[in-house]
Amino acid sequence: LLPAAGDPLPSWNDTASKASIVAFVEKVSDPQSPDYVPQELRIATFDNDGTLWSEKPLYFQALYAFDRLQEKAKADPGILTSDVLKAAAAGDMKGAMAGGDKGLIDIVNVSHSGLTVEDFETDVKTWLTTATHPTSGRIYADMIYQPMVELLAYLRDRGFSTYIVSGGGVHFIRAISQEAYNVPPQQVVGSEGATNYSLVDGKPTLMKEGGLQFLDDKAGKPVGIDRHIGRRPIFVAGNSDGDLQMLEWATAGEGPRLGLFVHHTDAKREFAYDRDSSVGRLSDGLDAAGGKGWLLVDMAKDWAVIWPGKQ
Amino acid sequence: LLPAAGDPLPSWNDTASKASIVAFVEKVSDPQSPDYVPQELRIATFDNDGTLWSEKPLYFQALYAFDRLQEKAKADPGILTSDVLKAAAAGDMKGAMAGGDKGLIDIVNVSHSGLTVEDFETDVKTWLTTATHPTSGRIYADMIYQPMVELLAYLRDRGFSTYIVSGGGVHFIRAISQEAYNVPPQQVVGSEGATNYSLVDGKPTLMKEGGLQFLDDKAGKPVGIDRHIGRRPIFVAGNSDGDLQMLEWATAGEGPRLGLFVHHTDAKREFAYDRDSSVGRLSDGLDAAGGKGWLLVDMAKDWAVIWPGKQ
Ligand SMILES: [Ca+2]
Ligand SMILES: [Ca+2]
Repeated sequence: LLPAAGDPLPSWNDTASKASIVAFVEKVSDPQSPDYVPQELRIATFDNDGTLWSEKPLYFQALYAFDRLQEKAKADPGILTSDVLKAAAAGDMKGAMAGGDKGLIDIVNVSHSGLTVEDFETDVKTWLTTATHPTSGRIYADMIYQPMVELLAYLRDRGFSTYIVSGGGVHFIRAISQEAYNVPPQQVVGSEGATNYSLVDGKPTLMKEGGLQFLDDKAGKPVGIDRHIGRRPIFVAGNSDGDLQMLEWATAGEGPRLGLFVHHTDAKREFAYDRDSSVGRLSDGLDAAGGKGWLLVDMAKDWAVIWPGKQ
Repeated sequence: LLPAAGDPLPSWNDTASKASIVAFVEKVSDPQSPDYVPQELRIATFDNDGTLWSEKPLYFQALYAFDRLQEKAKADPGILTSDVLKAAAAGDMKGAMAGGDKGLIDIVNVSHSGLTVEDFETDVKTWLTTATHPTSGRIYADMIYQPMVELLAYLRDRGFSTYIVSGGGVHFIRAISQEAYNVPPQQVVGSEGATNYSLVDGKPTLMKEGGLQFLDDKAGKPVGIDRHIGRRPIFVAGNSDGDLQMLEWATAGEGPRLGLFVHHTDAKREFAYDRDSSVGRLSDGLDAAGGKGWLLVDMAKDWAVIWPGKQ
């Protein structure tokens, strides 16, 4: 996953997008540049689903939740208290999504509770590295975007701190963030379910409980960044309207700023969607991008490869 | 504030406490040692009030809240909706504390809301560096503990990441954490009030609102550490029963661990209190320390100086 010598972004085609990114990163990290930004302020935040890895036909965390729910319901069918939960446990994607975002949150709450944080992260890691995606046939961990992995490494090489800021759960992402992106757990900001600390048989234990305590999406993203980082990022990447406020807030700060949307334009190699998608809808963001000077990364044109290894 | 060459902890007397701390730090950071801990796992967490700076007669954040409440009530006396709030605005410490922790949280909620995060932090910083403490006559920023500032620097010098994990508000502590402790904003974990993001006159704005969303105290400390850091600390310092669960959780992990309580034994130079104090009560922690092998730092015996500069 290391960039080739001389080209920090070998999986990016030589288009205007790549040139814009490189020009920005170089000018803010060059002490001789008038646009130089001190290292401690070189904060970059990245959305995860659809920005660092794929999210179709549905967020991977939701697909994981279906599998876990099915397993839990075998032991205790009483947990399936709604049609949405029943559909999820049956692997019926359409039925599970009929409840919208609220339904998905219910599915996550019920499926992700009643085990320790450590056991949960171990289970997620196993799933992400063994279960296979319904259309690509790849294991989920192999559906990270190679060009973005290179971009993260390039930013770090230029003194940036790289953070994930995701609507997905913080524990879910941490299960893979170090291996997949070289992003350590303290640089993952995500949605937060209730977690309780207590002594279980005398052993200090952090248990995951039901109940969403913080939704790191839309207007929640600037709030999550403020809580965890306390500094306004100068480089921000997203792919949907859920990232609009993060881009808006970050790029309104003083000095040089770069905001970008990964635009899913590649039906052949990945998926093509924007305004009409319920997962990863990009509509208000598309309308705003031009006026704000945000970069639209065209996956079909700008990326030489999508995922790591053989395509 | 730099340690003298050869002695990383010049403001500590040469007692068993100092020897224990140095022995621990050296063994976990020495690659030749059987107790070596990789750098990314060298996480140290410090409580703030009573551990890194003074907390008597009352938490500095509460004293700040009284001043702000008084100021806000001049413009709008209607905000003083309870006896506790009225007492706080009148500077009546006893009356303000009659409501216990719940009363203090009310005082903080009402006094800390209705302004942007940036304006709040600027206001706190001004207050901490100009207002003076009722008994010491020092500005509050000069009531940090010099021995602990040296300990933080020593740990960082040995590859530790140093975090503050406080029951106090995250924005309050960040106003001073870099200057006082060399701890950047992303390494401050604290209690969290509601913060809302919106466009105000077209400008992206983070506003502080009333309402506590996360209390980073007692069993909340392991939860806060898990949310923000995602790793179990190997070095933990506190001073009260509010830190008991943090010490318990951290020191129950595998491998070498050090937990310590700063014990306020110095009535002459600072304040002496433990089991019977409503602020910073240390009782269950004192009972547990011996059995757990936690270090009790005796301020009177172990510290050559308390605060920076002339005593
Ligand atoms: Ca996304
Ligand atoms: Ca304390």
